[in-house]
Amino acid sequence: MIDDFFGAIRIGLVKQAALGFFDSGVGGLTVVRAVQDLLPHEDVIYLGDTARLPYGSKSPETIRQFADEDVNFLLSKGVKAIVVACNTATAHALPSLQQKYEIPIMGVILPGVEAALADPTAERIGIIATRGTIGSHVYQHALATRRTGLMIHGIAAPLLVPLIEENWISEEVTQQVLLKYLQPLIDKGIDTLMLACTHYPLLVPVLKEVLPSDVRLVDSATTCAEHLKIMLEKIDLLSDQEEDGKLSIYLTDLSEQFEELARRFLKRSTGKIHRAVVG
Amino acid sequence: MIDDFFGAIRIGLVKQAALGFFDSGVGGLTVVRAVQDLLPHEDVIYLGDTARLPYGSKSPETIRQFADEDVNFLLSKGVKAIVVACNTATAHALPSLQQKYEIPIMGVILPGVEAALADPTAERIGIIATRGTIGSHVYQHALATRRTGLMIHGIAAPLLVPLIEENWISEEVTQQVLLKYLQPLIDKGIDTLMLACTHYPLLVPVLKEVLPSDVRLVDSATTCAEHLKIMLEKIDLLSDQEEDGKLSIYLTDLSEQFEELARRFLKRSTGKIHRAVVG
Repeated sequence: MIDDFFGAIRIGLVKQAALGFFDSGVGGLTVVRAVQDLLPHEDVIYLGDTARLPYGSKSPETIRQFADEDVNFLLSKGVKAIVVACNTATAHALPSLQQKYEIPIMGVILPGVEAALADPTAERIGIIATRGTIGSHVYQHALATRRTGLMIHGIAAPLLVPLIEENWISEEVTQQVLLKYLQPLIDKGIDTLMLACTHYPLLVPVLKEVLPSDVRLVDSATTCAEHLKIMLEKIDLLSDQEEDGKLSIYLTDLSEQFEELARRFLKRSTGKIHRAVVG
Repeated sequence: MIDDFFGAIRIGLVKQAALGFFDSGVGGLTVVRAVQDLLPHEDVIYLGDTARLPYGSKSPETIRQFADEDVNFLLSKGVKAIVVACNTATAHALPSLQQKYEIPIMGVILPGVEAALADPTAERIGIIATRGTIGSHVYQHALATRRTGLMIHGIAAPLLVPLIEENWISEEVTQQVLLKYLQPLIDKGIDTLMLACTHYPLLVPVLKEVLPSDVRLVDSATTCAEHLKIMLEKIDLLSDQEEDGKLSIYLTDLSEQFEELARRFLKRSTGKIHRAVVG
């Protein structure tokens, strides 16, 4: 990853180029939304690998291969920087992507960890995520190296993404599934719950019902946008255009269901969604 | 599809070659198990496209592309006939595969329909399947053209596959999810429930608990094996080897979870599972 102005110049990155985002599906649009709020003049190109989703239950090797192909698609679109807007891909692929490519690439995990530790009293931290993210131990390691004495409890919760995609968020059964996953964390007295999957922000209303009221919910979208802004300022790549940025969404599989979900994650119009061929 | 002896001779198919099966994941091993029981001397090559599963929520175009790539993988292994051991792929891709390739290719839908109609009193038929299978209307059409006066009710049940893969089959929440999907069918007084996804046979014990005792459960594995036997006899391609057939399983993504699931679907040892590169 380049970390200075001259690096950016050297590989020919320009302010007017778009920011690239990718995720296994449309959940990463929660990060795009936060970036559009903070950096409204940036153009955004978003790739959702819906033909091969989910990533969360697949092996590290396969996730790294898919992530590499996703990055290549975004590079072919001439982006100036890339956000891995997927926790599983960040967990397994970010280091190898940063090593392989000169373009700035950031993930969602360190911003999430920073958001969790922004409260100096946070002590007992629960993490819910896909099997892949929990199994990587990247969150647990990043938290433990930044603050000593934390109690950290990670839970793989593979049914949450299908429940969200089925739009069963308000159904009683979703509360029951959440309670089944979260009861061990509640019993351990967590003060913070990290939503370590870009799909989960849609669950916040139900989570507030099933969790004790003093548990703080943390997702990485907002801090991720802040990290991105700092990085772009540092390498002088913030857009200087005056009009609002354009959003272009590419999905590797198109369906009405994905388009409807994309609107729910983005909370605004998606514009025309394009089909991408990746891999 | 060839349908005679001379066709088989013409394209050089030989009795000693293996049978090829493919599915989006490991659910199709329920069909392999039935085939091993009925045709113990046949070698079997099984491909599970675990890197891109599930197929059930993806678009018809994407499913057809994946199925075509799966068939090409099996052809590269020299199989003598192919079973599409996946309802979603059968629904969307079987006709185009049969048109494109000379090798005999069969699916799981017609055997399932025949099994459902084997009871002459069957009148009110419920179908549970993935969104893709239900949306294709292939089951509904095949039933309605074979018997008049049927009441047919199809329900897309996309949460069932993740519940099975999470191994939550005995959890109370699985009963509740099943009841939420099935209550409308129970209210309509179905006498038959078709399990139109190769994952669902694992749910039979719970289904028996939540359904009225007089509802008949039908899956396509056994009739699919019978159809395959008849087809192979007709074109004189049944294996004449005397020892037990060998099973070779290829998955596009390998993980401990898939290997464990494969054993549960097959109900016997899987042998060493190989990684396949497809597409």
